[in-house]
Order: sequence, then C-alpha cells, then structure tokens
Amino acid sequence: MPPPDRPDEAGRFAFDGLDRVLHEKKRLGILTSLLAHRDGLVFNELKELCTLTDGNLNRHLAALQEDGLVEIWKGMNGRRPQTLVRLTTVGRERFLGYLGLLEGIVHDALSAAEAAPAPQKGVGLNPA
Amino acid sequence: MPPPDRPDEAGRFAFDGLDRVLHEKKRLGILTSLLAHRDGLVFNELKELCTLTDGNLNRHLAALQEDGLVEIWKGMNGRRPQTLVRLTTVGRERFLGYLGLLEGIVHDALSAAEAAPAPQKGVGLNPA
Repeated sequence: MPPPDRPDEAGRFAFDGLDRVLHEKKRLGILTSLLAHRDGLVFNELKELCTLTDGNLNRHLAALQEDGLVEIWKGMNGRRPQTLVRLTTVGRERFLGYLGLLEGIVHDALSAAEAAPAPQKGVGLNPA
Repeated sequence: MPPPDRPDEAGRFAFDGLDRVLHEKKRLGILTSLLAHRDGLVFNELKELCTLTDGNLNRHLAALQEDGLVEIWKGMNGRRPQTLVRLTTVGRERFLGYLGLLEGIVHDALSAAEAAPAPQKGVGLNPA
C-alpha cells in the first residue's frame, strides 16, 4: 500500500527500453571500442581492447552481426588473413540511443540517491 | 596491426569493473527503485514499479540477497502478510559505485562518438 506522497507510476523502473542485445557488459565494451574507431578495428585489436578470447569475441560478434549492428569483413594484410569489424549505421544509431537512455537512468538513480541519503534501520517496517 | 596514432591500451574496453550481479536490466530497475525509496518498498509496489512477475522478482531478490545487497523483511499489514525490501548499506554503496562507473563509460562512449562522427564505407578496409 503506497503512501500518498509517492508519485511513482507502475512500470517507472521497468527499463524496458534497455536493449538486451546491447546491455551485456562485454558487448558494451565491443561497441564502445567500435564507436571510438569509426574505420573499424581488426579482430585482434578488438580482442585485446576488450580482453576477450577468440571464441567469446566471435560469439558476441555473431550475435551483433545477426542483429545488423556490426559488419564483418575478411581481407589480407600481406599474406595474413585479417578480419575487420565495423559498426553499421544502424548499430551506431541503436548504440547511441541505448547510451542516451542509460545516461538518463544513471542520472535519475544518482539524483534519487541524493534525495534519499541513507537507509535507516527499522523505518518503514510496520509489522502488526 | 594498430596504426601508431592509436593510444589504446589492451583491456581499455574490458569493463571488468562492471558488476555482473548489478548489470542486469531488471536488477538495475529494482536497485534504482530501492535507491529512490530509502525506507524500502513492499513486494507489490516493487513488482509494479519494475513490471515484473512474482516469480521473476523473487528470483532477482534471492540473487541480490545472496550477495548481501538487499534485505527482506516479513511483516503484517493488518491480517495480510507483507514483504518489505530494502537496500543494505553495502548494496547502496556497491550500486552507487556501479552507477559511477557506468556514468564514466557512457560519458567516454558519447565523447568517442563525437570525436569520430560517422562510419564511412570502405575506409580502413585494405584487402590485398
């Protein structure tokens, strides 16, 4: 039973807009790396920046590619095969949208923390 | 082979500090709700704020309680049993730490996007 001074609406903290494909900590790293390198990154650079194994990076890239967020190019550097990964235009837009949303959530949460400084033992508990 | 103008260090985008227990979108909602209500929320309020089923909320709360992030109190409102959920001091500190880290990541990513405005087709790809 909410006290009358609580203006909260149902679903206010549902955060449904947070894209599950993007909201994974290693993907957040991959996408930030790519956002910072608009010409793309070769597989090994990306792997090192994000501290990922080949297998993990491949799995995340496959998921991101399936959603059209990254593009993957095969090429050669001299005789060595190379893989280049870039953010697609759609990927860039979706990631920027996600970041904007996340920024708002963090801002709201930190504002809430300032408005409600510290938990107090026993307050609000009303066992009868 | 990174060009010399890339100051990136290995692991720069590993985001290892992002706490996996907290970095889950529904838990982010639960913790933000609790941060905004320092006296705690009863189960049904929390459920509505986060748009969760009983089962899902119970599962997330069990995980958060196991990590010492929330405390769960059983009480009565008249004849009706009630459950009160509150953020622990440790939970509050860990969540605030997480939010601070996330704030930095979002800020860095958005700055990176500003510094590298848009992806260009074909640039950086050097198939030989």
